[in-house]
Amino acid sequence: MKAVALFSGGLDSTVLAYHLLDQNAELKLLSIDYGQRHQKELDSSSNIAGSLSIPHQILQLPMLGNLLGGSALTDPAISLPEGHYAEDSMKATVVPNRNMILLSLAAGHAISLQFDTVAYAAHAGDHTIYPDCRPEFADAMDNVLQLADWNKINLHRPFVKWSKADLVKRGNELGVPFEKTWSCYAGGSKHCGKCGTCVERKEAFELVGLSDPTQYKG
Amino acid sequence: MKAVALFSGGLDSTVLAYHLLDQNAELKLLSIDYGQRHQKELDSSSNIAGSLSIPHQILQLPMLGNLLGGSALTDPAISLPEGHYAEDSMKATVVPNRNMILLSLAAGHAISLQFDTVAYAAHAGDHTIYPDCRPEFADAMDNVLQLADWNKINLHRPFVKWSKADLVKRGNELGVPFEKTWSCYAGGSKHCGKCGTCVERKEAFELVGLSDPTQYKG
Repeated sequence: MKAVALFSGGLDSTVLAYHLLDQNAELKLLSIDYGQRHQKELDSSSNIAGSLSIPHQILQLPMLGNLLGGSALTDPAISLPEGHYAEDSMKATVVPNRNMILLSLAAGHAISLQFDTVAYAAHAGDHTIYPDCRPEFADAMDNVLQLADWNKINLHRPFVKWSKADLVKRGNELGVPFEKTWSCYAGGSKHCGKCGTCVERKEAFELVGLSDPTQYKG
Repeated sequence: MKAVALFSGGLDSTVLAYHLLDQNAELKLLSIDYGQRHQKELDSSSNIAGSLSIPHQILQLPMLGNLLGGSALTDPAISLPEGHYAEDSMKATVVPNRNMILLSLAAGHAISLQFDTVAYAAHAGDHTIYPDCRPEFADAMDNVLQLADWNKINLHRPFVKWSKADLVKRGNELGVPFEKTWSCYAGGSKHCGKCGTCVERKEAFELVGLSDPTQYKG
Protein backbone atom coordinates (compact mmCIF):
# COMPACT_ATOMS: atom_id res chain seq x y z
CA MET A 1 0.00 0.00 0.00
CA LYS A 2 1.22 3.48 -0.92
CA ALA A 3 -0.90 5.87 1.08
CA VAL A 4 -1.38 9.54 1.71
CA ALA A 5 -2.66 9.66 5.30
CA LEU A 6 -4.53 12.63 6.76
CA PHE A 7 -2.54 13.48 9.83
CA SER A 8 -3.65 16.12 12.30
CA GLY A 9 -1.11 15.37 15.01
CA GLY A 10 -3.97 14.15 17.21
CA LEU A 11 -4.19 10.81 18.95
CA ASP A 12 -6.32 9.08 16.29
CA SER A 13 -4.25 9.96 13.24
CA THR A 14 -0.99 9.26 15.08
CA VAL A 15 -2.20 5.75 15.92
CA LEU A 16 -3.18 5.47 12.25
CA ALA A 17 0.33 6.40 11.09
CA TYR A 18 1.94 3.85 13.43
CA HIS A 19 -0.66 1.23 12.47
CA LEU A 20 0.04 1.69 8.73
CA LEU A 21 3.82 1.66 9.22
CA ASP A 22 3.41 -1.57 11.19
CA GLN A 23 1.73 -2.96 8.05
CA ASN A 24 4.71 -1.86 5.93
CA ALA A 25 2.79 0.83 4.04
CA GLU A 26 4.71 3.49 2.16
CA LEU A 27 3.40 6.68 3.75
CA LYS A 28 3.14 10.37 3.07
CA LEU A 29 1.54 12.34 5.91
CA LEU A 30 -0.60 15.34 5.04
CA SER A 31 -1.69 17.95 7.58
CA ILE A 32 -4.03 20.77 6.67
CA ASP A 33 -4.40 24.16 8.29
CA TYR A 34 -8.06 24.92 7.61
CA GLY A 35 -8.19 27.79 10.08
CA GLN A 36 -8.80 25.57 13.16
CA ARG A 37 -8.35 27.36 16.47
CA HIS A 38 -6.23 24.49 17.80
CA GLN A 39 -3.23 25.27 15.59
CA LYS A 40 -1.11 23.50 18.19
CA GLU A 41 -2.05 20.19 16.60
CA LEU A 42 -0.02 21.25 13.54
CA ASP A 43 3.09 21.64 15.73
CA SER A 44 2.40 18.16 17.10
CA SER A 45 2.11 16.81 13.57
CA SER A 46 5.57 18.15 12.63
CA ASN A 47 7.08 16.87 15.85
CA ILE A 48 5.69 13.34 15.45
CA ALA A 49 6.39 13.10 11.70
CA GLY A 50 9.96 14.27 12.34
CA SER A 51 10.54 11.57 14.95
CA LEU A 52 9.20 8.95 12.52
CA SER A 53 11.38 10.28 9.67
CA ILE A 54 8.59 9.97 7.10
CA PRO A 55 7.59 12.57 4.51
CA HIS A 56 5.17 15.14 5.85
CA GLN A 57 3.57 18.25 4.41
CA ILE A 58 1.45 20.95 6.03
CA LEU A 59 -0.89 22.58 3.54
CA GLN A 60 -1.71 26.13 4.64
CA LEU A 61 -5.35 26.88 3.81
CA PRO A 62 -6.42 29.09 6.75
CA MET A 63 -8.78 31.03 4.47
CA LEU A 64 -11.08 27.99 4.48
CA GLY A 65 -12.25 29.03 7.94
CA ASN A 66 -14.04 31.94 6.30
CA LEU A 67 -15.61 29.85 3.52
CA LEU A 68 -16.85 27.23 5.99
CA GLY A 69 -18.22 29.61 8.61
CA GLY A 70 -20.44 28.66 11.48
CA SER A 71 -18.24 26.21 13.36
CA ALA A 72 -16.83 26.71 16.86
CA LEU A 73 -13.60 25.15 15.59
CA THR A 74 -12.88 27.94 13.13
CA ASP A 75 -14.89 30.93 14.31
CA PRO A 76 -13.58 32.56 17.50
CA ALA A 77 -16.95 34.32 17.91
CA ILE A 78 -18.65 30.95 18.55
CA SER A 79 -17.88 29.55 22.00
CA LEU A 80 -16.50 26.04 22.26
CA PRO A 81 -18.91 23.69 24.05
CA GLU A 82 -17.71 21.80 27.15
CA GLY A 83 -18.92 18.37 28.14
CA HIS A 84 -19.12 14.89 26.65
CA TYR A 85 -18.36 14.36 23.00
CA ALA A 86 -21.61 12.58 22.25
CA GLU A 87 -23.82 15.44 23.42
CA ASP A 88 -25.91 17.40 20.98
CA SER A 89 -24.13 20.65 21.89
CA MET A 90 -20.95 19.25 20.31
CA LYS A 91 -22.53 19.73 16.87
CA ALA A 92 -21.21 23.30 17.11
CA THR A 93 -17.77 21.77 16.41
CA VAL A 94 -18.81 20.41 13.00
CA VAL A 95 -16.84 22.11 10.21
CA PRO A 96 -19.08 21.92 7.10
CA ASN A 97 -17.93 19.12 4.79
CA ARG A 98 -14.49 19.06 6.39
CA ASN A 99 -13.71 15.41 5.74
CA MET A 100 -14.72 15.45 2.08
CA ILE A 101 -12.54 18.50 1.53
CA LEU A 102 -9.55 16.98 3.34
CA LEU A 103 -9.98 13.59 1.66
CA SER A 104 -10.33 15.12 -1.80
CA LEU A 105 -7.13 17.13 -1.29
CA ALA A 106 -5.34 14.00 -0.05
CA ALA A 107 -6.64 12.06 -3.06
CA GLY A 108 -5.41 14.72 -5.48
CA HIS A 109 -2.00 14.51 -3.84
CA ALA A 110 -2.07 10.69 -3.97
CA ILE A 111 -2.88 10.76 -7.71
CA SER A 112 -0.07 13.25 -8.24
CA LEU A 113 2.38 10.93 -6.37
CA GLN A 114 1.01 7.84 -8.16
CA PHE A 115 -0.03 6.36 -4.82
CA ASP A 116 -3.02 4.00 -4.58
CA THR A 117 -4.60 4.84 -1.23
CA VAL A 118 -5.90 7.62 0.97
CA ALA A 119 -6.17 6.80 4.68
CA TYR A 120 -7.96 8.56 7.53
CA ALA A 121 -8.67 7.84 11.17
CA ALA A 122 -12.45 8.25 11.50
CA HIS A 123 -13.62 6.02 14.36
CA ALA A 124 -16.94 4.89 15.80
CA GLY A 125 -16.97 7.48 18.60
CA ASP A 126 -17.27 10.27 16.05
CA HIS A 127 -20.41 9.05 14.33
CA THR A 128 -23.12 10.62 16.43
CA ILE A 129 -21.78 14.15 15.95
CA TYR A 130 -20.05 14.22 12.60
CA PRO A 131 -22.04 13.26 9.49
CA ASP A 132 -18.80 12.86 7.55
CA CYS A 133 -17.44 10.23 9.94
CA ARG A 134 -20.32 7.79 9.36
CA PRO A 135 -19.48 4.44 7.76
CA GLU A 136 -22.02 5.14 4.97
CA PHE A 137 -20.24 8.40 4.19
CA ALA A 138 -16.90 6.57 4.08
CA ASP A 139 -18.38 3.91 1.76
CA ALA A 140 -19.78 6.55 -0.61
CA MET A 141 -16.48 8.42 -0.50
CA ASP A 142 -14.60 5.22 -1.34
CA ASN A 143 -16.96 4.74 -4.27
CA VAL A 144 -16.40 8.22 -5.72
CA LEU A 145 -12.63 7.97 -5.21
CA GLN A 146 -12.62 4.91 -7.47
CA LEU A 147 -13.90 7.19 -10.25
CA ALA A 148 -11.89 10.35 -9.64
CA ASP A 149 -8.98 9.27 -11.81
CA TRP A 150 -8.30 6.70 -14.55
CA ASN A 151 -6.51 4.69 -11.85
CA LYS A 152 -8.54 3.80 -8.78
CA ILE A 153 -7.79 5.36 -5.41
CA ASN A 154 -8.86 3.33 -2.38
CA LEU A 155 -10.14 4.87 0.83
CA HIS A 156 -8.59 3.07 3.81
CA ARG A 157 -10.38 3.69 7.12
CA PRO A 158 -9.32 0.83 9.40
CA PHE A 159 -10.79 2.38 12.56
CA VAL A 160 -14.28 3.14 11.32
CA LYS A 161 -15.79 0.54 13.68
CA TRP A 162 -13.33 1.06 16.57
CA SER A 163 -13.94 2.96 19.78
CA LYS A 164 -11.51 5.58 21.03
CA ALA A 165 -10.49 3.08 23.73
CA ASP A 166 -9.62 0.55 20.98
CA LEU A 167 -7.35 3.21 19.46
CA VAL A 168 -5.59 3.86 22.77
CA LYS A 169 -5.10 0.13 23.25
CA ARG A 170 -3.68 -0.32 19.74
CA GLY A 171 -1.50 2.77 20.11
CA ASN A 172 -0.11 1.40 23.35
CA GLU A 173 0.83 -1.89 21.64
CA LEU A 174 2.59 0.06 18.89
CA GLY A 175 4.53 2.35 21.23
CA VAL A 176 2.77 5.54 20.10
CA PRO A 177 4.24 8.58 21.95
CA PHE A 178 0.88 9.76 23.33
CA GLU A 179 2.57 12.67 25.11
CA LYS A 180 3.36 14.20 21.71
CA THR A 181 -0.21 14.01 20.39
CA TRP A 182 -2.59 16.95 20.64
CA SER A 183 -6.35 16.45 21.00
CA CYS A 184 -7.77 19.58 22.64
CA TYR A 185 -9.99 21.90 20.57
CA ALA A 186 -9.58 24.93 22.84
CA GLY A 187 -6.24 26.08 21.48
CA GLY A 188 -4.42 26.65 24.79
CA SER A 189 -0.88 25.60 25.69
CA LYS A 190 -2.09 22.56 27.70
CA HIS A 191 -5.10 20.28 27.13
CA CYS A 192 -8.14 22.02 28.68
CA GLY A 193 -9.66 18.76 29.96
CA LYS A 194 -13.18 20.08 29.43
CA CYS A 195 -13.92 20.20 25.70
CA GLY A 196 -15.53 17.19 24.03
CA THR A 197 -12.33 15.75 22.64
CA CYS A 198 -10.45 16.11 25.97
CA VAL A 199 -13.31 14.40 27.82
CA GLU A 200 -13.38 11.58 25.25
CA ARG A 201 -9.60 11.18 25.42
CA LYS A 202 -9.53 10.94 29.22
CA GLU A 203 -12.41 8.46 29.18
CA ALA A 204 -10.64 6.26 26.63
CA PHE A 205 -7.45 6.03 28.71
CA GLU A 206 -9.52 5.23 31.81
CA LEU A 207 -11.42 2.47 30.00
CA VAL A 208 -8.17 0.84 28.89
CA GLY A 209 -6.63 1.29 32.36
CA LEU A 210 -3.71 3.35 31.12
CA SER A 211 -2.39 6.65 32.34
CA ASP A 212 -2.57 9.53 29.82
CA PRO A 213 0.89 11.16 29.74
CA THR A 214 -0.62 14.45 28.48
CA GLN A 215 -0.62 17.39 30.88
CA TYR A 216 -4.07 18.80 31.60
CA LYS A 217 -4.64 22.37 32.69
CA GLY A 218 -5.51 23.12 36.30
CA MET B 1 -33.17 25.88 -5.57
CA LYS B 2 -30.49 27.63 -3.51
CA ALA B 3 -27.23 26.79 -5.18
CA VAL B 4 -23.52 27.44 -4.90
CA ALA B 5 -22.31 27.25 -8.51
CA LEU B 6 -18.68 26.66 -9.45
CA PHE B 7 -17.90 29.55 -11.71
CA SER B 8 -14.61 29.85 -13.54
CA GLY B 9 -15.53 32.75 -15.79
CA GLY B 10 -15.34 30.38 -18.75
CA LEU B 11 -18.05 29.82 -21.34
CA ASP B 12 -19.52 26.68 -19.74
CA SER B 13 -19.95 28.00 -16.20
CA THR B 14 -21.23 31.36 -17.48
CA VAL B 15 -23.96 29.58 -19.45
CA LEU B 16 -24.65 27.61 -16.27
CA ALA B 17 -25.08 30.80 -14.22
CA TYR B 18 -27.49 32.28 -16.78
CA HIS B 19 -29.32 28.94 -17.10
CA LEU B 20 -29.87 28.70 -13.32
CA LEU B 21 -30.95 32.34 -13.03
CA ASP B 22 -33.43 31.68 -15.84
CA GLN B 23 -34.84 28.93 -13.60
CA ASN B 24 -35.15 31.40 -10.71
CA ALA B 25 -32.45 29.78 -8.60
CA GLU B 26 -30.95 31.73 -5.71
CA LEU B 27 -27.26 31.72 -6.63
CA LYS B 28 -23.87 32.23 -5.05
CA LEU B 29 -21.00 32.00 -7.51
CA LEU B 30 -17.72 30.52 -6.31
CA SER B 31 -14.45 30.85 -8.22
CA ILE B 32 -11.28 29.15 -7.08
CA ASP B 33 -7.70 30.08 -7.77
CA TYR B 34 -5.99 26.67 -7.64
CA GLY B 35 -2.78 27.92 -9.22
CA GLN B 36 -4.04 27.65 -12.82
CA ARG B 37 -1.85 29.40 -15.37
CA HIS B 38 -4.90 31.02 -16.95
CA GLN B 39 -5.55 33.42 -14.07
CA LYS B 40 -7.30 35.65 -16.57
CA GLU B 41 -10.41 33.52 -16.17
CA LEU B 42 -10.69 34.84 -12.60
CA ASP B 43 -10.85 38.42 -13.92
CA SER B 44 -13.59 37.28 -16.28
CA SER B 45 -15.46 35.71 -13.39
CA SER B 46 -15.46 39.01 -11.45
CA ASN B 47 -16.48 40.96 -14.52
CA ILE B 48 -19.42 38.69 -15.36
CA ALA B 49 -20.61 38.26 -11.77
CA GLY B 50 -20.49 42.05 -11.33
CA SER B 51 -22.65 42.62 -14.39
CA LEU B 52 -25.16 40.06 -13.08
CA SER B 53 -25.17 41.65 -9.61
CA ILE B 54 -25.13 38.30 -7.85
CA PRO B 55 -22.93 37.30 -4.90
CA HIS B 56 -19.51 36.05 -5.97
CA GLN B 57 -16.41 34.96 -4.09
CA ILE B 58 -12.93 34.09 -5.33
CA LEU B 59 -11.20 31.66 -3.01
CA GLN B 60 -7.43 32.08 -3.24
CA LEU B 61 -5.77 28.67 -3.00
CA PRO B 62 -2.80 29.01 -5.38
CA MET B 63 -0.73 26.68 -3.20
CA LEU B 64 -2.84 23.79 -4.48
CA GLY B 65 -0.81 23.89 -7.69
CA ASN B 66 2.12 22.52 -5.72
CA LEU B 67 0.10 19.78 -3.98
CA LEU B 68 -1.45 18.64 -7.26
CA GLY B 69 1.72 18.65 -9.35
CA GLY B 70 2.09 17.12 -12.77
CA SER B 71 -0.50 19.09 -14.76
CA ALA B 72 0.25 21.47 -17.62
CA LEU B 73 -2.47 23.73 -16.20
CA THR B 74 -0.59 24.44 -12.99
CA ASP B 75 3.07 23.63 -13.70
CA PRO B 76 4.81 26.12 -15.99
CA ALA B 77 7.55 23.53 -16.59
CA ILE B 78 5.08 21.29 -18.44
CA SER B 79 4.23 22.59 -21.90
CA LEU B 80 0.60 23.06 -22.82
CA PRO B 81 -0.50 20.71 -25.62
CA GLU B 82 -2.00 22.20 -28.80
CA GLY B 83 -4.62 20.49 -30.92
CA HIS B 84 -8.08 19.04 -30.45
CA TYR B 85 -9.55 18.63 -27.02
CA ALA B 86 -10.36 14.97 -27.45
CA GLU B 87 -6.78 13.93 -28.23
CA ASP B 88 -4.81 11.80 -25.83
CA SER B 89 -2.15 14.53 -25.48
CA MET B 90 -4.75 16.70 -23.71
CA LYS B 91 -4.51 14.43 -20.66
CA ALA B 92 -1.54 16.63 -19.67
CA THR B 93 -4.16 19.23 -18.72
CA VAL B 94 -5.79 17.01 -16.10
CA VAL B 95 -5.38 18.52 -12.61
CA PRO B 96 -5.50 15.55 -10.20
CA ASN B 97 -8.91 15.30 -8.56
CA ARG B 98 -9.71 18.91 -9.39
CA ASN B 99 -13.47 18.55 -9.59
CA MET B 100 -13.87 16.63 -6.35
CA ILE B 101 -11.80 19.29 -4.57
CA LEU B 102 -13.78 22.16 -6.08
CA LEU B 103 -17.13 20.46 -5.50
CA SER B 104 -16.30 19.58 -1.90
CA LEU B 105 -15.32 23.20 -1.20
CA ALA B 106 -18.53 24.41 -2.85
CA ALA B 107 -20.53 21.90 -0.80
CA GLY B 108 -18.92 23.06 2.44
CA HIS B 109 -19.84 26.61 1.53
CA ALA B 110 -23.39 25.56 0.61
CA ILE B 111 -23.83 23.82 3.99
CA SER B 112 -22.49 26.90 5.72
CA LEU B 113 -25.01 29.10 3.84
CA GLN B 114 -27.84 26.57 4.43
CA PHE B 115 -28.22 26.14 0.66
CA ASP B 116 -29.44 22.84 -0.79
CA THR B 117 -27.51 22.48 -4.04
CA VAL B 118 -24.08 22.56 -5.63
CA ALA B 119 -24.01 23.11 -9.40
CA TYR B 120 -21.27 22.66 -11.96
CA ALA B 121 -20.98 22.80 -15.72
CA ALA B 122 -19.36 19.48 -16.67
CA HIS B 123 -20.49 18.61 -20.20
CA ALA B 124 -20.21 15.62 -22.51
CA GLY B 125 -17.25 16.98 -24.46
CA ASP B 126 -15.06 16.70 -21.36
CA HIS B 127 -15.59 13.03 -20.70
CA THR B 128 -12.89 11.48 -22.81
CA ILE B 129 -10.12 13.47 -21.15
CA TYR B 130 -11.25 14.20 -17.64
CA PRO B 131 -12.17 11.26 -15.40
CA ASP B 132 -13.91 13.65 -13.01
CA CYS B 133 -16.31 14.91 -15.69
CA ARG B 134 -17.82 11.46 -16.40
CA PRO B 135 -21.52 10.98 -15.59
CA GLU B 136 -20.62 8.05 -13.32
CA PHE B 137 -18.30 10.31 -11.34
CA ALA B 138 -21.04 12.92 -11.05
CA ASP B 139 -23.53 10.26 -9.88
CA ALA B 140 -21.11 8.99 -7.22
CA MET B 141 -20.38 12.55 -6.16
CA ASP B 142 -24.10 13.27 -5.86
CA ASN B 143 -24.41 10.17 -3.69
CA VAL B 144 -21.63 11.15 -1.28
CA LEU B 145 -22.92 14.74 -1.07
CA GLN B 146 -26.23 13.37 0.23
CA LEU B 147 -24.27 12.01 3.22
CA ALA B 148 -21.82 14.82 3.89
CA ASP B 149 -24.15 16.68 6.22
CA TRP B 150 -27.29 15.92 8.24
CA ASN B 151 -29.17 17.83 5.53
CA LYS B 152 -28.78 16.54 1.99
CA ILE B 153 -26.88 18.53 -0.60
CA ASN B 154 -27.84 17.85 -4.23
CA LEU B 155 -25.37 17.91 -7.09
CA HIS B 156 -26.92 19.69 -10.06
CA ARG B 157 -25.14 19.07 -13.38
CA PRO B 158 -27.66 19.95 -16.09
CA PHE B 159 -25.11 19.84 -18.94
CA VAL B 160 -23.58 16.44 -18.25
CA LYS B 161 -25.05 15.03 -21.49
CA TRP B 162 -24.76 18.24 -23.56
CA SER B 163 -22.15 19.01 -26.20
CA LYS B 164 -20.21 22.28 -26.17
CA ALA B 165 -22.31 23.32 -29.19
CA ASP B 166 -25.48 22.76 -27.10
CA LEU B 167 -24.00 25.12 -24.50
CA VAL B 168 -23.28 27.82 -27.09
CA LYS B 169 -26.81 27.47 -28.43
CA ARG B 170 -28.37 27.72 -24.97
CA GLY B 171 -26.09 30.63 -24.05
CA ASN B 172 -27.15 32.45 -27.19
CA GLU B 173 -30.83 32.04 -26.27
CA LEU B 174 -30.12 33.43 -22.81
CA GLY B 175 -28.12 36.43 -24.01
CA VAL B 176 -24.83 35.29 -22.44
CA PRO B 177 -22.10 37.92 -23.08
CA PHE B 178 -19.69 35.45 -24.72
CA GLU B 179 -17.15 38.24 -25.25
CA LYS B 180 -16.66 38.44 -21.49
CA THR B 181 -16.00 34.71 -21.02
CA TRP B 182 -12.48 33.30 -20.95
CA SER B 183 -11.72 29.78 -22.18
CA CYS B 184 -8.03 29.67 -23.15
CA TYR B 185 -5.61 27.62 -21.03
CA ALA B 186 -2.46 29.38 -22.25
CA GLY B 187 -2.68 32.40 -19.97
CA GLY B 188 -2.05 35.14 -22.57
CA SER B 189 -3.94 38.41 -23.00
CA LYS B 190 -5.98 37.07 -25.95
CA HIS B 191 -7.31 33.57 -26.65
CA CYS B 192 -4.44 31.59 -28.26
CA GLY B 193 -6.74 29.71 -30.65
CA LYS B 194 -4.53 26.60 -30.50
CA CYS B 195 -4.95 24.94 -27.11
CA GLY B 196 -7.59 22.25 -26.67
CA THR B 197 -10.17 24.47 -25.11
CA CYS B 198 -9.76 27.21 -27.76
CA VAL B 199 -10.10 24.64 -30.54
CA GLU B 200 -13.20 23.18 -28.90
CA ARG B 201 -14.71 26.65 -28.40
CA LYS B 202 -14.19 27.67 -32.03
CA GLU B 203 -15.61 24.36 -33.23
CA ALA B 204 -18.73 24.78 -31.08
CA PHE B 205 -19.50 28.24 -32.46
CA GLU B 206 -18.97 26.96 -36.02
CA LEU B 207 -21.31 24.02 -35.41
CA VAL B 208 -24.07 26.34 -34.18
CA GLY B 209 -23.42 28.79 -37.00
CA LEU B 210 -22.65 31.71 -34.70
CA SER B 211 -19.73 34.08 -34.69
CA ASP B 212 -17.52 33.96 -31.59
CA PRO B 213 -17.08 37.54 -30.37
CA THR B 214 -13.83 36.63 -28.60
CA GLN B 215 -10.60 38.02 -30.07
CA TYR B 216 -8.08 35.35 -31.04
CA LYS B 217 -4.37 36.00 -31.23
CA GLY B 218 -2.70 36.38 -34.63
